[in-house]
Amino acid sequence: MGVNEEKLASLDAEAGQAGSGLSTPPASADAVSRLDRWMARKLLDVVGEPPFSIHLWDGSVVQPAGGVARFCLHIRDRGALFKVMLDPELHFGTLYSAGRIEVDGDLVQFLEWSYLGLRDAGEGSAAARLLKWINKRPRRNTLSGSRHNIHHHYDIGNAFYALWLDTEAMQYTCAYYPEADMTLEQAQVAKLHHVCRKLQLKPGDTVVEAGCGWGGLARFMARHYGVTVKAYNISHEQVKFARQKAEEEGLSDRVEYIEDDYRNISGMYDVFVSVGMLEHVGPRYYRELGDVIHRCLKSEGRGLIHTIGRRKPGLMNAWIEKHIFPGACPPSLAEMMDIFEPHEFAVQDVENLRLHYAKTLRHWLERYEDNLDTIRESFDENFVRAWRLYLAGSIAAFTTNELQLFQVVFSGPERHDLPWSRKHLYE
Amino acid sequence: MGVNEEKLASLDAEAGQAGSGLSTPPASADAVSRLDRWMARKLLDVVGEPPFSIHLWDGSVVQPAGGVARFCLHIRDRGALFKVMLDPELHFGTLYSAGRIEVDGDLVQFLEWSYLGLRDAGEGSAAARLLKWINKRPRRNTLSGSRHNIHHHYDIGNAFYALWLDTEAMQYTCAYYPEADMTLEQAQVAKLHHVCRKLQLKPGDTVVEAGCGWGGLARFMARHYGVTVKAYNISHEQVKFARQKAEEEGLSDRVEYIEDDYRNISGMYDVFVSVGMLEHVGPRYYRELGDVIHRCLKSEGRGLIHTIGRRKPGLMNAWIEKHIFPGACPPSLAEMMDIFEPHEFAVQDVENLRLHYAKTLRHWLERYEDNLDTIRESFDENFVRAWRLYLAGSIAAFTTNELQLFQVVFSGPERHDLPWSRKHLYE
Repeated sequence: MGVNEEKLASLDAEAGQAGSGLSTPPASADAVSRLDRWMARKLLDVVGEPPFSIHLWDGSVVQPAGGVARFCLHIRDRGALFKVMLDPELHFGTLYSAGRIEVDGDLVQFLEWSYLGLRDAGEGSAAARLLKWINKRPRRNTLSGSRHNIHHHYDIGNAFYALWLDTEAMQYTCAYYPEADMTLEQAQVAKLHHVCRKLQLKPGDTVVEAGCGWGGLARFMARHYGVTVKAYNISHEQVKFARQKAEEEGLSDRVEYIEDDYRNISGMYDVFVSVGMLEHVGPRYYRELGDVIHRCLKSEGRGLIHTIGRRKPGLMNAWIEKHIFPGACPPSLAEMMDIFEPHEFAVQDVENLRLHYAKTLRHWLERYEDNLDTIRESFDENFVRAWRLYLAGSIAAFTTNELQLFQVVFSGPERHDLPWSRKHLYE
Repeated sequence: MGVNEEKLASLDAEAGQAGSGLSTPPASADAVSRLDRWMARKLLDVVGEPPFSIHLWDGSVVQPAGGVARFCLHIRDRGALFKVMLDPELHFGTLYSAGRIEVDGDLVQFLEWSYLGLRDAGEGSAAARLLKWINKRPRRNTLSGSRHNIHHHYDIGNAFYALWLDTEAMQYTCAYYPEADMTLEQAQVAKLHHVCRKLQLKPGDTVVEAGCGWGGLARFMARHYGVTVKAYNISHEQVKFARQKAEEEGLSDRVEYIEDDYRNISGMYDVFVSVGMLEHVGPRYYRELGDVIHRCLKSEGRGLIHTIGRRKPGLMNAWIEKHIFPGACPPSLAEMMDIFEPHEFAVQDVENLRLHYAKTLRHWLERYEDNLDTIRESFDENFVRAWRLYLAGSIAAFTTNELQLFQVVFSGPERHDLPWSRKHLYE
């Protein structure tokens, strides 16, 4: 523990908040000093003077330079103010989760303003660090590291996810809204068809899926496109759920769920597909993933990888990487090419669906808020607030162009039977 | 001139062929030795035993290991045999152009067999050098270098290109065949619409085009989509032609052709477009191109780059780079990202149209052969054969997956008005 961290820990203890994770704490009884107020002003300056007022723990208010405030940021003790200035990437989320920072007004819009304010403030500046959520040390996704990291997120309970994901296929990835008024269920089904059409699935094809979630895509492909699927996943809870569903739906003869790492995929297939796993792989393992695809995909085969991405290389927000998605890192397209180029896979199609993910997340957040009573039966307020921030922050990241969603279609070196247009995706 | 080159020059002189460039020379009167025959055998071996027989200059034949020959490769003197073994990338084209190597049978299919044979023979082997057409030293595309390089190819006469390009828009880039039976003219118009739709052009938009050829796209955009265009090109002949056409068609008020390098683009635009220029830019200049786009494209603007590409980084065939396209180098997608990622442009769409370029080239080659009498009035046989090989070799490169054709749509960091689906491209 470094000196700064020690100091912060003592401030935490003072605020009675270290790791408590209970409901919103009372404001600190400390007097607000001139330094405190200077820091609050500085905070607004660094975020590019957004329309936020900052309410300190004694009730005093720092107004934005522009005058009218659209959001109030409540900072409830000195430790919170110091921490958010010191390492905002890491601490904003923790402080918000603990209720030591609160936001009056639409949380998504507040986060969008923060993103845009920081972007305008420029890159090289100290401002760029604030809330920009970049971390230098994501956890390693070795075989055992991945198992630990995935367990952290995906094994917290299928029932929890079932409360706010779609009821159709339990998809925890970006849906596809070709029509504006689609429900979440319709958009997830549209996504599954979009993926299957891009892969040109035909009856009898053998498919391997890397990172299959609760198995929705695998069952969908088998049922609607007549293929057989081997689907890999290292989340024990998800695989258990997926197997039971396949059993219930009479698909067990065509869909096999394997609780194992993508690096252990065996066999040869016509099609490789992976929807929402690459975020957890980490760029340093992309060549290895390419080796796996090369080993298991017929040379005339084809594949699709669907992943959150970035406009340039960078790392996941430190707080999300620490508390929500250990080891996660969305790639830039150049980074993704490390999967394809060493084995000369040909990229056929890339589609960026970032606005679709913002819309998907809005649907999720809405259902999440609608089910708070049930969620609170199993989780404490710290968890509830952390997940709200994660969902709202993700919406803001997609609407403000911080994050992208790439679907990349590729083919083996010997594939020449290519469609002459992409019209078939839209019929 | 190195030792090997000296030796080859003396062999050339012996064969009476050094730089003659006239019609097919007579076969050498030299006796064929055991070494000659061994080398011919080795040649077949290196190309992975394709169904070629090799006919040497004394009439003796080396048959393929497999037995039945579908193509005869005539090698008309010892110098040709030595040269093609020594540096096939560079010399096959020169020897074929000079008539010292000839091919009986379909030239495109012969070249396809050669590509595929070499690929099967494996990468690390000496075989990979043969005909694989990789060169380590493309010419630099500095401001003056580019002008020289472009002059070499594009200023050999508009009349020559008019003989075999489409009559509709004189497009010297990949056409688009969404329907199989389209004519070249229909497919080029379809390509122009495809590009304009991907750019979501609307009346009043300001467009800058980098590398405009004979100006067909610029006029098409102005006429059919109501935009104004500034189009840059360093080929004097092309710009002269383009200006005259715009004048004739009454488009001079909306289309301005500027004889200058893309690095000197000035002004601010809604749209950046470049079709078939990137091949001539060279990967080492991609960051600079990105800087140019960043400087001239509004932050909410959008753009499209259409280029020949590769599945992984590599260089142009040495013979083509030397004799046809000085300085040319088709990029891999990872290389292209050097244009977009440093300025955080967001890639929205990538489409690979490689089979469309094979089809386009077939149409060009057919018209080229139909117009040989006219071409021979202005060019010697060496030129005629060189261009035949270039067109046929390009077909083979696209059909065998050696080359790709990428259309990449991107948008400025502040562009949020994105289409919800690509359906509008297909209506």
